[in-house]
Amino acid sequence: MKVGPSVLVLLAASTVAPALNSAQPALMPWPAKLTMELGELPVTPGFSVRATRFRDARLEAAIRRFTDRLSLSTGVPFVTPAAGGPGLQIECSASGPAIPELGEDEAYRLDVAPSGAKLTAATVTGALRGLETLLQMASPDARGYHFPAVQIEDRPRFAWRGLMLDVSRHWMPLSVVLRNLDGMAAVKLNVFHWHLSDDQGFRVESKRYPKLQSLGSDGHYYTQDEVRQVIAYAADRGIRVVPEFDMPGHTTAWFTGYPEFASAPGPYAIERDWGIFKPTLDPSREATYQFVEGLLGELTALFPDRFFHIGGDEVDPEQWNQSAAVQAFAKQHGLATPAAIQEHFNRRLQAILKMRGKTMTGWDEILAPDLPHDAVVQSWRGQSSLAEAARKGYRSVLSFGYYLNYLQPASQLYANDPLDGDAEALNTAQAALILGGESCMWSEYVSQETVDSVIWPRVAAIAERLWSPRETRDAESMYTRMEAVSRTLEYTGLTHRSGPERELDRLAKSSDPEPLRVLVRAIEAQGHDPRAAARHYTSLVPLNRLVDAATAESELIRALEKSAHRAAEGNARDREFLRRNFALWKSNRKPLDALIAANPALQEIGPVADAVAEAGALGLEVLDYLQGGRPASEDWIAKRKAALDRCAQPRAEVVIAAVRPVRLLLDAIELRSRGGGKSSEGANAVRGN
Amino acid sequence: MKVGPSVLVLLAASTVAPALNSAQPALMPWPAKLTMELGELPVTPGFSVRATRFRDARLEAAIRRFTDRLSLSTGVPFVTPAAGGPGLQIECSASGPAIPELGEDEAYRLDVAPSGAKLTAATVTGALRGLETLLQMASPDARGYHFPAVQIEDRPRFAWRGLMLDVSRHWMPLSVVLRNLDGMAAVKLNVFHWHLSDDQGFRVESKRYPKLQSLGSDGHYYTQDEVRQVIAYAADRGIRVVPEFDMPGHTTAWFTGYPEFASAPGPYAIERDWGIFKPTLDPSREATYQFVEGLLGELTALFPDRFFHIGGDEVDPEQWNQSAAVQAFAKQHGLATPAAIQEHFNRRLQAILKMRGKTMTGWDEILAPDLPHDAVVQSWRGQSSLAEAARKGYRSVLSFGYYLNYLQPASQLYANDPLDGDAEALNTAQAALILGGESCMWSEYVSQETVDSVIWPRVAAIAERLWSPRETRDAESMYTRMEAVSRTLEYTGLTHRSGPERELDRLAKSSDPEPLRVLVRAIEAQGHDPRAAARHYTSLVPLNRLVDAATAESELIRALEKSAHRAAEGNARDREFLRRNFALWKSNRKPLDALIAANPALQEIGPVADAVAEAGALGLEVLDYLQGGRPASEDWIAKRKAALDRCAQPRAEVVIAAVRPVRLLLDAIELRSRGGGKSSEGANAVRGN
Repeated sequence: MKVGPSVLVLLAASTVAPALNSAQPALMPWPAKLTMELGELPVTPGFSVRATRFRDARLEAAIRRFTDRLSLSTGVPFVTPAAGGPGLQIECSASGPAIPELGEDEAYRLDVAPSGAKLTAATVTGALRGLETLLQMASPDARGYHFPAVQIEDRPRFAWRGLMLDVSRHWMPLSVVLRNLDGMAAVKLNVFHWHLSDDQGFRVESKRYPKLQSLGSDGHYYTQDEVRQVIAYAADRGIRVVPEFDMPGHTTAWFTGYPEFASAPGPYAIERDWGIFKPTLDPSREATYQFVEGLLGELTALFPDRFFHIGGDEVDPEQWNQSAAVQAFAKQHGLATPAAIQEHFNRRLQAILKMRGKTMTGWDEILAPDLPHDAVVQSWRGQSSLAEAARKGYRSVLSFGYYLNYLQPASQLYANDPLDGDAEALNTAQAALILGGESCMWSEYVSQETVDSVIWPRVAAIAERLWSPRETRDAESMYTRMEAVSRTLEYTGLTHRSGPERELDRLAKSSDPEPLRVLVRAIEAQGHDPRAAARHYTSLVPLNRLVDAATAESELIRALEKSAHRAAEGNARDREFLRRNFALWKSNRKPLDALIAANPALQEIGPVADAVAEAGALGLEVLDYLQGGRPASEDWIAKRKAALDRCAQPRAEVVIAAVRPVRLLLDAIELRSRGGGKSSEGANAVRGN
Repeated sequence: MKVGPSVLVLLAASTVAPALNSAQPALMPWPAKLTMELGELPVTPGFSVRATRFRDARLEAAIRRFTDRLSLSTGVPFVTPAAGGPGLQIECSASGPAIPELGEDEAYRLDVAPSGAKLTAATVTGALRGLETLLQMASPDARGYHFPAVQIEDRPRFAWRGLMLDVSRHWMPLSVVLRNLDGMAAVKLNVFHWHLSDDQGFRVESKRYPKLQSLGSDGHYYTQDEVRQVIAYAADRGIRVVPEFDMPGHTTAWFTGYPEFASAPGPYAIERDWGIFKPTLDPSREATYQFVEGLLGELTALFPDRFFHIGGDEVDPEQWNQSAAVQAFAKQHGLATPAAIQEHFNRRLQAILKMRGKTMTGWDEILAPDLPHDAVVQSWRGQSSLAEAARKGYRSVLSFGYYLNYLQPASQLYANDPLDGDAEALNTAQAALILGGESCMWSEYVSQETVDSVIWPRVAAIAERLWSPRETRDAESMYTRMEAVSRTLEYTGLTHRSGPERELDRLAKSSDPEPLRVLVRAIEAQGHDPRAAARHYTSLVPLNRLVDAATAESELIRALEKSAHRAAEGNARDREFLRRNFALWKSNRKPLDALIAANPALQEIGPVADAVAEAGALGLEVLDYLQGGRPASEDWIAKRKAALDRCAQPRAEVVIAAVRPVRLLLDAIELRSRGGGKSSEGANAVRGN
């Protein structure tokens, strides 16, 4: 489940969807249809929200949340309105299903005029989506806040738009789950896939098999009441909750309490390491199926969603191969391979789930010849397996390319379309089986403190890919809107922006964290694979270092890269912006020394600080050269490239992102020096020195 | 209630208490007795906390909170410990009162050794205090986190250590109250004074008089269940909850639902303005007392604390003077003045409260000849009224000098001692009547988003004044510890550091807020009086401007002031630190222009940015001069002083704190030029240019 895309699906920014006009609201996901109108609707303390046709408790709660968040995000206080003041009228016809369902109607229409706004939807679910759109539209002007006049008709492209959260490898308290549900609702994601058990922890209270949580969770699990609270909270926001209990592998934590259902004798302890482990349910004993049936009986009653995820990935066959009982069982049933044994196990599971009205869902590996046709396959191995499932008549969901823990840039997540690659060859009926996609947050390298800043804001790019029309692909527009939406997401309770600040405060102890902030804005965290290679991580290793305060993608570096392109063309303001930051990096080395001296835990950042300072110094030099307007010798360029390459070496598990804008400037000089650019001043190439 | 101290009690830093040694933990409040030992106790994933003698639900909950916050603040994950690993043993003998009480035992003893820590206390309340001390001691080193070995014996100096929060003028949702209770517990404050009603809102659900909240609160009130939740939450943390229902003045909001109890005919509307208003309860009608008795009957049952605050401040006599009924009533009862009428009203109130087992508490104005001797007087007019109350035999609490909304520096709050001034002349028995103090957070200029950053961290200085021995007065040590504790306070859920960042994000819209951050670190917010004078504020005016993102005291400017002193003596690192910041201010003007252009709401910051940039330019000039080592002419100095004075003019309701370090450098040059300093290089005074 931890494999990043080996083939990068890189798409050039298409010009089909319009680049964002500065007058347009920073909406994300971008609506199916939007027309700007003239004028604006002011957000005043008397702004009122009324449901004029249908209303239920869910709509009323949504209106309260809307008002609270509008107040928080604008600072405008709301008071009992004077009758008939301008405001928002909501007109919908029905509730929609009590528990959100796959494929339910999420469409809405929003008309904002200076005299008032009107939100129309067939169901409350559609109204929920429209309220989030309106919230994103509040904009400041000299007089206060307003909503720009606009007409929007909107509906999702895919019905399954998910976020998977692994709460097993690192425990995520209830508050983390709740605030991420709010964030999901804000970008119109509608499936919360809750990865509730793995080798490192079983995270739900079982009343029937209480040793699952009492021995398998370090005391970190959700009570059944808390699970119900999460489901209700999600339903209130139009989000389905799909639970996952991964089996027959990934079950070490189960065996701490119930070793008798493993394929090898115990005892077992909670796994502290990361990886694929041997403990596997024993498919040869009827008692195992009784245990699983008892547990699933309890859990399927707890989770109302129609879909139930049984994992099914990464089964290490060793215990099966070593067990005489399993081998005898396999022989008896004609199961020639471990895959065949797992298929047998899955058929039993599927029967248990079916009796309880559930549709089995699992990772790629469940796709076997006899898999019942209502099962849903979640593809983590590539678009090819997605397409294969569809050709065989199975519904599927794409997760390949959407793994947040790989820390790809948002543009790369954004470019990954469920219907790309092998899926392009599908016929219409087959393509319709591709339900959508799910981003995955595996938690080896995130804790409750850092998980928000790994998920957000990048998951918004995936949310847009899954909601907006396929033609909406302009990455620049996406970034502009994502960075705006990222700021307002903090008002949902997410801590993706404040969390890293807190990490910097911690690293700085009682000193001013400013030099660390300068540093962290110039770097990016390394993703899953390099971190796994860097040191021996386990669940007991604190995630409290510089890399944990760094983000997947530096907003500052992106801005500097944009400026570098313009600076190469002569823009003075961009040059000034670059110069200021380069100089800051260069002068930041000394104050960091003082911080390192005060906190020995910061020793490792010295080389990072060196690299960023060096990138700053090179940046200033290259910028001077560029402004001089002279071509450069090959040698001069080669020396600086080599120096940049040395800077660019990752260290302390961070990427020295600072080198990127410098490299762009150097590229511009090179292009010019080879005659491709406009070198007017200074006719001769200068020798490297 | 909004008067700041007219006489500043400024104390020179005493040398009685030791200045903080860098090896000492950054504790706040500083304990009564602390001895550092050799060695340290590591904080590992197996760290265990066990209550070995007495335990109850409150202690168990406190242990869970301790573990969670220790994990959050260090990043160290905790797992089911191996038996007998080093950890913390808690030994206490009894629960203490079920509901916290005035004067209960809060003492504890803490012994930390490399082999383990032991916390001893007579009651769970003492253990709560000790757990907060231990939390503040976690320190990083190269191997991870540890607690330094130490022996602490600790107990409070005053029994009443409060924070008053006004939730009427600006509504504060439940979450604000809860997180501030956590913050209070962290610095050992033990009284939450909840200012629940005022002209601008009645904030508690009354079942008997429901129009109080339905018409008097804009829908912003606490249900009785929520009130009970707050009381239980506070009790869990050893904090008393003293409710205040201010009467007979400050009652406009009451009359929106019950105009018949006002001293003049209605109708009434919720007050939106700030100030003192005329609506006052009608003391001449028996129905008024029946209403008050009915209401207090309900509220005294809801709030279990023995003390009940009836306000009693700032009664405008106009309605009484204009009312024939009140005048006839006054004549009949021989009440010659409005004060006498209020005294009569208070006697009735006191009888109602006494019947319900409550002790009446009120502001200064309740101190009248017939006031029963069990009443407690909260002094907002000065230490003289505190001493007066004590001389007359009343218990009292100091709030004068502790008004957080005046935004005084922490050093000033810290220097304000309940037993200073007139109280020094009290005899021992009289002095014992002074129960302690209460900081007050009046909410005209704070919203739920900004209130944390006005309360915190400065209230910690008051907490230390009230807990620690009188001799603990070193302001430098206090600041060092306060700034360290401030960072860990965010782990209680407070948003005093992250909130302003969010405000900057909002002001920056989708742009990088960095230039705003540079600006806001160089300024400070103006307090109550200048803001009131600056524009017509009401409860409907959004608090979403630069001033609302600024804090009362800039940590950066304090650091620069310290550096300026050392730089004047020749310290190169400090000069470099000053130079870097001055240069940053100077170069920050242009990027701010870009932000202003993108958000018209930022127009007003232009002049602020000009002043800070100018202070930076002057700073660079003065620093160059200082480094040159030559004396300066009077004219040269006078010109720069005049320029600084111009910069120092407040604008956009903020103080240009940036001028302070520059002024210190200039003072040093002046001193040197007059022969006071060591001018070696450059013998001649240079003429101003």
